[in-house]
Amino acid sequence: MDISRTEYGARLRGVRERMSRQGLSALLVSDPSNLYYLTGYNAWSFYTPQLLFVPADGDLLLFARTMDANGAFRTSWLPQQNVFGYPDELVHRAGVHPFDWVGGTLRELGAVTAAAGGQIGLELDSHFFSPKAYRSLLSALPEWDFVDSVELVNWVRVVKSPAEIELMRTAALIATNAMTTAFEHVRVGTRQCDVAAEISRAQIRGTADFGGDYPAIVPMLPTGAEADTPHLTWTDAPFADGQAVIVELAGAYRRYHVPLARTVMLGRPSLELQRVAGAVSEGVQAVLETVRPGIQARDLATTWERVLAAHGLAKPSRIGYSIGIGFPPDWGERTVSLRGEDETVLQENMTFHLIGGMWMDNYGYELSEPMRVTATGVETFTSLPRELIQSGVLL
Amino acid sequence: MDISRTEYGARLRGVRERMSRQGLSALLVSDPSNLYYLTGYNAWSFYTPQLLFVPADGDLLLFARTMDANGAFRTSWLPQQNVFGYPDELVHRAGVHPFDWVGGTLRELGAVTAAAGGQIGLELDSHFFSPKAYRSLLSALPEWDFVDSVELVNWVRVVKSPAEIELMRTAALIATNAMTTAFEHVRVGTRQCDVAAEISRAQIRGTADFGGDYPAIVPMLPTGAEADTPHLTWTDAPFADGQAVIVELAGAYRRYHVPLARTVMLGRPSLELQRVAGAVSEGVQAVLETVRPGIQARDLATTWERVLAAHGLAKPSRIGYSIGIGFPPDWGERTVSLRGEDETVLQENMTFHLIGGMWMDNYGYELSEPMRVTATGVETFTSLPRELIQSGVLL
Repeated sequence: MDISRTEYGARLRGVRERMSRQGLSALLVSDPSNLYYLTGYNAWSFYTPQLLFVPADGDLLLFARTMDANGAFRTSWLPQQNVFGYPDELVHRAGVHPFDWVGGTLRELGAVTAAAGGQIGLELDSHFFSPKAYRSLLSALPEWDFVDSVELVNWVRVVKSPAEIELMRTAALIATNAMTTAFEHVRVGTRQCDVAAEISRAQIRGTADFGGDYPAIVPMLPTGAEADTPHLTWTDAPFADGQAVIVELAGAYRRYHVPLARTVMLGRPSLELQRVAGAVSEGVQAVLETVRPGIQARDLATTWERVLAAHGLAKPSRIGYSIGIGFPPDWGERTVSLRGEDETVLQENMTFHLIGGMWMDNYGYELSEPMRVTATGVETFTSLPRELIQSGVLL
Repeated sequence: MDISRTEYGARLRGVRERMSRQGLSALLVSDPSNLYYLTGYNAWSFYTPQLLFVPADGDLLLFARTMDANGAFRTSWLPQQNVFGYPDELVHRAGVHPFDWVGGTLRELGAVTAAAGGQIGLELDSHFFSPKAYRSLLSALPEWDFVDSVELVNWVRVVKSPAEIELMRTAALIATNAMTTAFEHVRVGTRQCDVAAEISRAQIRGTADFGGDYPAIVPMLPTGAEADTPHLTWTDAPFADGQAVIVELAGAYRRYHVPLARTVMLGRPSLELQRVAGAVSEGVQAVLETVRPGIQARDLATTWERVLAAHGLAKPSRIGYSIGIGFPPDWGERTVSLRGEDETVLQENMTFHLIGGMWMDNYGYELSEPMRVTATGVETFTSLPRELIQSGVLL
């Protein structure tokens, strides 16, 4: 286990302190990243409903499909007697929901009494918590006063421990390997899918010492004219001369993610692309020089906007977000966003993916840097050149 | 485009017929598989909210984050003027939700008038439709009488067209390649992650003629004692003699999935594992011989249970589910389940993943067969041996 029992204890205390501040006598956690953060539970079981009951005091109780609950001890520190499996016939079936059973079982286990005196927090914007699940809980536990916990656990995750930083440094090695693999394989005539295949292989192999984990998002390869939109994956078309190929990927290790983006040029870049690439490099550099504890997230956005404006450019979307644990479909933490509206004060050991993504008419450009806020400034997790990468030029 | 405009028209008619039967004057679709089925829209953009407005008559309207909406025409047949982008500052932010904006825009576009006279269907159990999103719509459009559409589009998807079957046959080639790649690489001393890497590479490369797509689920490799739970992915531990290794994967082509599971034995299998493997082979064979149009899904479960019981075994979970289009986190369609409670009548061109998964104490065994219901019986999509695979024995 990479995270000590002491650290799991500290995580739970952090969550309970926030619960207390928000007036919550219990929290119901469904986000797989938050489940993993609190219990270590790690399986591709989140496509069926899962729920962790976190009372202000007392035992955590985990609920999952029976076939998954049986093996939860394989990855989680939770004692097996605190893990409960709901019947399989409640899965993917009209008119019923597994949380009908979970609600009843929570009541039988005394959770209603245990959680008396305050409101009950729900992760109302978690990816794998549906309105049907929500309505099932409302009707199974009508005496509970449910409120949105508003990413409570996610906010506890924002500042990383030394152990987490170490896991992210390993993820960064894997991200660098995967990106240099992409540089080697993006060539005129090679199919996009074949490059994605090599990237994926590099991500999962990891290094000789550290096997890779699956990233929360597959490699994205918006190419040529199609790179005016950011989230295309790949096709089986061969790369062609004159295309700029965006490569966005992550290294993942024990579910910790370090994302990375570069743009690879096949042939001669247009003057316009060169101009954008130059502005983005300058913007990213200026932001990195601004990072330090005590400033606000929005100050980074302001720095970025100032540099871009000097080049006659603007970017209508955030320039980054908090990173750490990730499960599909997202490696962001859904907390801090680097944008004008975000007044979060930066603290040491917050970690971000700073991403200068420009999606223009019929082409696109991305350059990113994963980073950690240090006591006095910034540490970047990777060290690849921050410029347009010319295909065929080995690094 | 693999699916003709005529076929997209037929899909929409199928959805509207069901809407009419359910008394819906409009449907709001958020499931990425359903969006893809109706519009062809395909990007890894489902980690931020998306919504397709489907009125009983008139234009479909798609809402996504601005950066994704701008490029929706790259993969969808929808005219660009029917695609709307919400502002980026609504993404991952407390106190607001993108559907606040979407609700207001729907009203401005006349959707309230267009959808008068009936209830409005919502996909209340879709993976990427959160309670926060749901409450945002309720409050933005208070005059709408929302009801659960209960997997309406998913049920239209259950019977496949000839074009879809063809895409699945290609996915089956890729699944077979990926599985034989696994057979070649599962060896004593090889790290689990290195085998997962080779499987992933084979899945994404596809064949020389057909590039692979990303599967909705990563390769799963429950190994040895840990195979008593089904949804573990991999570690970086090396395989050891005496382990049975479950390999569950899918081939994916243009988002159509053909899943496949086998178990690879390193060294000599125990008598108990041989007994289970024999029973499962017999059970799967018996089910395949039972499949034909007109019987019910539960009849297959009954057949399976009868064979297993004769061997003193039972399986407390469904033995299969409907397959077709898939996006993470699931390649199942969330409609038909092969289990005792399901009275769905089988029809020609329904497609299923029949999976005999036995998760025992400290070991596990899986054998599956993806299949299509034909006019008179069954077609299996793959043709690998349906038995315990001995490592090192080339097929």
